Amino acid sequence: MIKEIFEHRSIRSYLKKDISDEILSEVIDAAIRASNTGNMQTYSIIITKNKEKKKQLAPTHFNQKMVEEAPVILTFCADFNRFNKWCDLRNADAGYDNFLSFMSATIDAIIAAQNACLEAEHHNLGICWLGTVIYNADKIIDILELPKSVVPVAAITIGYPNEKNELSDRLPKNAVIHNETYKNYSKEDINKLYFEKENRADSKQYIKENNKENLAQVFTDVRYPRKNNEYFSEILLKVLKQQNFL
Amino acid sequence: MIKEIFEHRSIRSYLKKDISDEILSEVIDAAIRASNTGNMQTYSIIITKNKEKKKQLAPTHFNQKMVEEAPVILTFCADFNRFNKWCDLRNADAGYDNFLSFMSATIDAIIAAQNACLEAEHHNLGICWLGTVIYNADKIIDILELPKSVVPVAAITIGYPNEKNELSDRLPKNAVIHNETYKNYSKEDINKLYFEKENRADSKQYIKENNKENLAQVFTDVRYPRKNNEYFSEILLKVLKQQNFL
Repeated sequence: MIKEIFEHRSIRSYLKKDISDEILSEVIDAAIRASNTGNMQTYSIIITKNKEKKKQLAPTHFNQKMVEEAPVILTFCADFNRFNKWCDLRNADAGYDNFLSFMSATIDAIIAAQNACLEAEHHNLGICWLGTVIYNADKIIDILELPKSVVPVAAITIGYPNEKNELSDRLPKNAVIHNETYKNYSKEDINKLYFEKENRADSKQYIKENNKENLAQVFTDVRYPRKNNEYFSEILLKVLKQQNFL
Repeated sequence: MIKEIFEHRSIRSYLKKDISDEILSEVIDAAIRASNTGNMQTYSIIITKNKEKKKQLAPTHFNQKMVEEAPVILTFCADFNRFNKWCDLRNADAGYDNFLSFMSATIDAIIAAQNACLEAEHHNLGICWLGTVIYNADKIIDILELPKSVVPVAAITIGYPNEKNELSDRLPKNAVIHNETYKNYSKEDINKLYFEKENRADSKQYIKENNKENLAQVFTDVRYPRKNNEYFSEILLKVLKQQNFL
């Protein structure tokens, strides 16, 4: 078992301690060794260390405090800009202004980002994925000065942990695996698979705090409501058009 | 340094040797420990071992021989179906039929897939990402019987290696990193960053074999031509609509 995988916790509080250039360099090297489509390396990594830049980025990540606290933020972008420039200079027709190319570049960027996370954890650093990066891609593009054909798809805060967390819970394994074909879920399956999660003490606390009937409603009404998802979907689709991927 | 990250090679030829249930189980466990949005685990993993299923999948991956040769194929799907069913049963309004939800589920599935790959390599298995999964998602949905709200976004062949490969080349590190803001590339930058790649013996071989003027044209005219990218983009966008994500 790879220790870093099985001991991963999201770390949202960091010590005031910088990451050495040497360690950060190994984290980037790990990202670069990742599998990628056709070895085109259609991603870029923006390194944020500057205090002022973190302050600018903070609202795009809904002011989660770790954004300003972490010594380093890595923003991974789906990036066909570099490849397109190369093709243009070589009289080659770069046909990558489309949705398939965006998706393949996104996948490459995410694989690279996960390698970086694990390597960071290997050096006793803590990391947290910021899912918010795809909500406010438009603003991040402005702040990081990303050109056309570049879209941020992952952002990771990295720093030395200032908290200790338990491993987070997971659904039973048979909730997520299917043998040969997808076995759809009956009402009884769902009740069984979510039983433990619904009966955790922290789940009951969330329900109470948010004044909801059950845990599912905490997700749908508070954490990830339809209204927000639809609003940020429109923005993200506009970003894809603006960056020449749609 | 995490050995598995830095020693990764794509393996496309496998021994006729099965993967034990115990090892496969640890590979899946590694996937499940991955970071994911709101701990909603909006992914599913379809395990293909059956010979007939592999034969059906092979054309969707353009008949790359490792698809039928590998003892196991794991297809990772962006999956809101299970979560939606749970919400529906709890009188909670599941607002996840939109593009943002598709992207967040895709990112979760890719992180999980990369964990699985590294853990497989830890057990001396070889893996290969099949980028083709997003080209023929429509056909894979039929073969694996995926319901609405489920889209395959990663497919990995896994087996004991029957080949030894060199580490693949990479662009110089400064090609993919940017400090604080994106530094766009001048003509001179591109020439410098691609110099080594363009002058590799294998690159020169590809150019000759494909009767092209340069390496960029091998990508744009032969490997990833505009016509294919546009054709498969249309199919993928149709799949997103059909699966209720657009």
